[in-house]
Amino acid sequence: MKLAIIGATGLVGKTLLTLLQERKFPHEELLLVASAASAGQQARVADQSYQLIDLPTAVKEQPTIAIFATDAAVATDWALRFAAIGTVVVDNSAAWRLHPDWKLIVPEVNGRLLSPTDRLIANPNCVAISLVMALAPLHRHYGLKRLVIATYQAVSGSGQAGVDQLMAERSGLASSAHQAYLYPIDQNVIPHIGDFLEDGYTQEEQKLVDETQKILEAPTLPITATAVRIPTLRAHAVAINVELAQDFTLAGVIQDLQAMPGVVVTDTVQKHAYPTCIAAQH
Amino acid sequence: MKLAIIGATGLVGKTLLTLLQERKFPHEELLLVASAASAGQQARVADQSYQLIDLPTAVKEQPTIAIFATDAAVATDWALRFAAIGTVVVDNSAAWRLHPDWKLIVPEVNGRLLSPTDRLIANPNCVAISLVMALAPLHRHYGLKRLVIATYQAVSGSGQAGVDQLMAERSGLASSAHQAYLYPIDQNVIPHIGDFLEDGYTQEEQKLVDETQKILEAPTLPITATAVRIPTLRAHAVAINVELAQDFTLAGVIQDLQAMPGVVVTDTVQKHAYPTCIAAQH
Repeated sequence: MKLAIIGATGLVGKTLLTLLQERKFPHEELLLVASAASAGQQARVADQSYQLIDLPTAVKEQPTIAIFATDAAVATDWALRFAAIGTVVVDNSAAWRLHPDWKLIVPEVNGRLLSPTDRLIANPNCVAISLVMALAPLHRHYGLKRLVIATYQAVSGSGQAGVDQLMAERSGLASSAHQAYLYPIDQNVIPHIGDFLEDGYTQEEQKLVDETQKILEAPTLPITATAVRIPTLRAHAVAINVELAQDFTLAGVIQDLQAMPGVVVTDTVQKHAYPTCIAAQH
Repeated sequence: MKLAIIGATGLVGKTLLTLLQERKFPHEELLLVASAASAGQQARVADQSYQLIDLPTAVKEQPTIAIFATDAAVATDWALRFAAIGTVVVDNSAAWRLHPDWKLIVPEVNGRLLSPTDRLIANPNCVAISLVMALAPLHRHYGLKRLVIATYQAVSGSGQAGVDQLMAERSGLASSAHQAYLYPIDQNVIPHIGDFLEDGYTQEEQKLVDETQKILEAPTLPITATAVRIPTLRAHAVAINVELAQDFTLAGVIQDLQAMPGVVVTDTVQKHAYPTCIAAQH
């Protein structure tokens, strides 16, 4: 099995490589794919050295699986070229998520939709994944009626550029070059993730609406979101106000959340146990 | 006119003294009141030296106005002793805000309720003030039907202890002494402000509900709030989902907000103008 990581030198690509090692993901051959400018350079993964290759070379290699950890522009141009030669593409970008021909999958929520013939599988927005993990069991049991969302998003969501900007500002080294944000992010709160759309919402806010609706198969569910960047390094947080269609008890809701694989309920608040970003990283 | 600042050495007291100078607040005599432990020490305000006095001494001085910048326990014990001798008390703590005998005032919103015979005037929670400033004109015009609130609160809201904890953590000097928060606040998001109540909400969240209802004279308005501490130094932010009772246009709502004294609308998002914490400090 030949595995290609497209965007292997970015923040997401590097994290992906670490996880593949940690989980001993089975593969005989690993292709590290980067921009044409980086191709030919060496990269190390778990003490092995690899030569970075460019996208045209990667297609010729005919990988079994290609994981895209790139921006949407690269995935728009290249994902189907891999899919067309039989590669199973998993795309982490926004390029194909809402396209009706392709599935948008969170394994714990709608992995049952996958079939062996799938050639392009889209991976949702990072906050949308957290949302649907908590919402799916409630939607199944009670039906969702309305969602009001406010996010607390870490700079890691902007990739290495976001991490670099925060760290540079914290060390007093902020420069105007290679900024991820238009304003300082240290000591700040920035309600601007992705471009603004004509209606005043941002792309990120619209993604949370559209992707949640698609994954939960609830295309008309009323959702509104405020997406906010805050000066944390890792772990996004979100406050969701959920209105349910059917009667519920709080104990019943907590039971449903606890039964959901991948969801950890931390709610013994009288003993000061509640979710925090730092706890979520461990 | 004799003016007493109770809690003159705290973060709020010091900020208050700066504002009094900046605004040339008229007073012939200034009393700086602190704990018994600090009484007798000297403090400087605008190049003048003052001797700190304790509360019993301050009562004997019979100030015309006493501004409490203390915690609720001190205000509970002492505010009425000043009021009883004719001092006009303005209390920044939570001690008297919800008491039916006393008024909870935001000048721009319900200052008309004040009368010359008032002897104790409560000042709301810092986030509640921001909320009602934006909500009051909408409530007057359209009627509020439901509010869903998520806050992004700076460490200055915890006074000097909050500022000290964040700064110590950022310099790598974090110690376990005098911590404002049970967990690290740098790089973190902590949904715990005030103690937890039996129903799982925090005191801060309940304050936002109760104080907003009292100030807007809307005792049955459905409000839910999630109050969250984030690692910013100053300027609280809040995302509010507002449901209005009557039909509205977005242009009309913006016009009403713009007409509200003290409210600044920053919404030319296509030119990347939107509210941020750093901009709010200038």
